[in-house]
Formats: sequence, structure tokens, C-alpha cells
Amino acid sequence: MIVEISVVPIGVGESLSKYISEAIKVIKEKNVKHELNPMGTVVEVNSFLELGEILDEIKERLEKTGVPRIYFTVKVDWRKKATNMEYKVKSVQEKLFL
Amino acid sequence: MIVEISVVPIGVGESLSKYISEAIKVIKEKNVKHELNPMGTVVEVNSFLELGEILDEIKERLEKTGVPRIYFTVKVDWRKKATNMEYKVKSVQEKLFL
Amino acid sequence: MIVEISVVPIGVGESLSKYISEAIKVIKEKNVKHELNPMGTVVEVNSFLELGEILDEIKERLEKTGVPRIYFTVKVDWRKKATNMEYKVKSVQEKLFL
Amino acid sequence: MIVEISVVPIGVGESLSKYISEAIKVIKEKNVKHELNPMGTVVEVNSFLELGEILDEIKERLEKTGVPRIYFTVKVDWRKKATNMEYKVKSVQEKLFL
Repeated sequence: MIVEISVVPIGVGESLSKYISEAIKVIKEKNVKHELNPMGTVVEVNSFLELGEILDEIKERLEKTGVPRIYFTVKVDWRKKATNMEYKVKSVQEKLFL
Repeated sequence: MIVEISVVPIGVGESLSKYISEAIKVIKEKNVKHELNPMGTVVEVNSFLELGEILDEIKERLEKTGVPRIYFTVKVDWRKKATNMEYKVKSVQEKLFL
Repeated sequence: MIVEISVVPIGVGESLSKYISEAIKVIKEKNVKHELNPMGTVVEVNSFLELGEILDEIKERLEKTGVPRIYFTVKVDWRKKATNMEYKVKSVQEKLFL
Repeated sequence: MIVEISVVPIGVGESLSKYISEAIKVIKEKNVKHELNPMGTVVEVNSFLELGEILDEIKERLEKTGVPRIYFTVKVDWRKKATNMEYKVKSVQEKLFL
């Protein structure tokens, strides 16, 4: 399944990139395929359980750096048929230039 | 943590309530506190792992009924300080009538 | 169209209900049908333009109270066929008790 | 403000790229800076009113191609301080390699 994770730390001021990069370090450590964009990070995982482990680790890591509250937005595209990040973008782009 | 789950089955036509009610049956079976609204179901869980188990079960149940693709939107409000659904709504409503 | 609006003020500490209630005051002033839940406010509007006016007003109102950054999550269910908030919840609940 | 738009057409089968590319054509025609990713399209706009015009046009265009229902997820990062898509990604990436 293809998942976009957005992490919004609350109660630590207006500048968030320090915390976002900490979250991405967790994703890198888990060896999960990922791609950063201006509004989130897209990852490929095999189940919601795998996703849950990643998100719990992000929460714990940010909690340790002193973040008292975190707002997450997670969008998931699950498909029975095998697919991946590159295919999704490519199939849209092909149709753009028809 | 307080979580809102939205489930959008794709490829099974325009009418979705049959599938949404199947998803809510899973939540009920897990004995998780929940509250339905017109755009999702709000639940209280203790971790993303617990949430992951619920979402994997919803995915499997809908897959069995023939849904080939599902789009999920999940919003999560985690707070170090203990909180709950009722408190969140009450604290906003109190300030509305000041 | 049925819309759920979530407003997350950033850079004003951990407690947000004061700002959320300000956002709901804007919705009330616009005389838009709405329903508060623990993770957002569901409204019925006729177009994205109408929605845009409401959200710009919320942004301006919070900016005036000193909020330097706001994260919004907006989910929209548009349907050609007429529908409403109550119908969506009712059609799911009916199927739950079959 | 930086906005991520996700468009999920409902009731037109499982394959959606044809419709997504139609939505991106609208964004291109509006001459709005944008960037496609596997889970949405990130744009920069000046107000929710401007965003509303784009989304109404996307809705109308898809309705014309026969889509009876559309689910949208829109995430918005508004900041008083000027910012942009590139800056957001860069400020996170810099901290990743410290």
C-alpha cells in the first residue's frame, strides 16, 4: 500500500523542520522506500501494522525531544492489484501528454 | 490518542454505506470507543499499532466482500497529557458561549 | 457538498480550543449548517468558492489573534445526487442493524 | 499558502489516472505552480478563494466526463511568513544531513 504521512508537532513553536527531519530519520532507519514532498512523505508498506510500528516510533522519538502534542494526517491507497509509487505518477503523466 | 478514520471503497460503484457499515462492525467487534459522524468515525486507541490492527482487519473484511481498492484518510491527535473525545468537544463548546 | 474542516493553529502553544472556537464562530456567522465532532467540524456548502470564503475568514480571524501558522485538513464528499449530513449517517446506521 | 490536493473519483471503476490527469490539466490551465507526487498534487495559491475556483473547476470537469461522486482531501499549510514548496523541502533535507 502507498501511504502519505504528514506530521505536525504542536506546542514547540512555528518552525517545524527540525522535528520533521527527525521523523524522516525514523523512516530511513526502517529501510522503507520513501519520497519527501512539500506536504508529507510518501512511503510503501505491506500492512497497517507495519505502518503502525513506524508511526509509534516517530511519536516516541518526537516525544523524547519534548513535543507535547502531535497531529498526524495519513492518506492510504491500498489496492489488491500490485502497484507502486512510480507507477502511480507515470500513469497520470502519460495521460497528461496524450 | 484520538483518531478519525475515513474509508472510501473504490471500484464498487457510487453507493458506499454498505461497506462503511462493514468497517464500523470491525470497530465494534474490537470494543473500541467510537463515534460516527457524516465524514468518518472517531475512535480512541492507545497506539498506532492498535490502530494498525483495526485498519488491517477493515481492509481484509472489505477485500473479502470484493472491494479491489480502498482509499483511507486517517487524522490523529496524540497528546502526552491524557485527553478524550468528550473533553475535546466540551472545551471548544465552553469557549463558544463565553 | 459535505465538508469536514480541521483547523490546527501552530506556534501558539499546546492548547488549541480557544482558536478552534474562534473558527466555529466564523462558521456560525456565515449561517452554514454545521456539526462539531472531536476531530473537526462538518459543514454543508454549495461550492468550493463558498467554502473558500469561509476558510479565508477563519484564517484572517486567527491571524488577528496572533496565530503565525495554520495547518488545515479539509475532506470533501461531493455527489451529483442530492444528499446531506443526516442521510449519510442514517444510511450507514441502518445497515449496521440489519 | 501551500496546498496538497487529492482527488478520488467514485463510481467510475478502479482505475483513476484518466480522471486525475484531467484534474491536473485544470491546474495547468490556471497557471498555478504545482508538483505531482504519488498521493496528490502540491500547489501554491494566495487564498482559499483562489483554491476554491480551482477545485470547483476540477469538480465541473470531472462531472462532465460522467463522474457521479468525488472525494477530495485537501491539506493546507498557511504561514504569515512568506514561504514556498522548495524552501519547505530544503529546510527538512538540510537537517537530515547534519
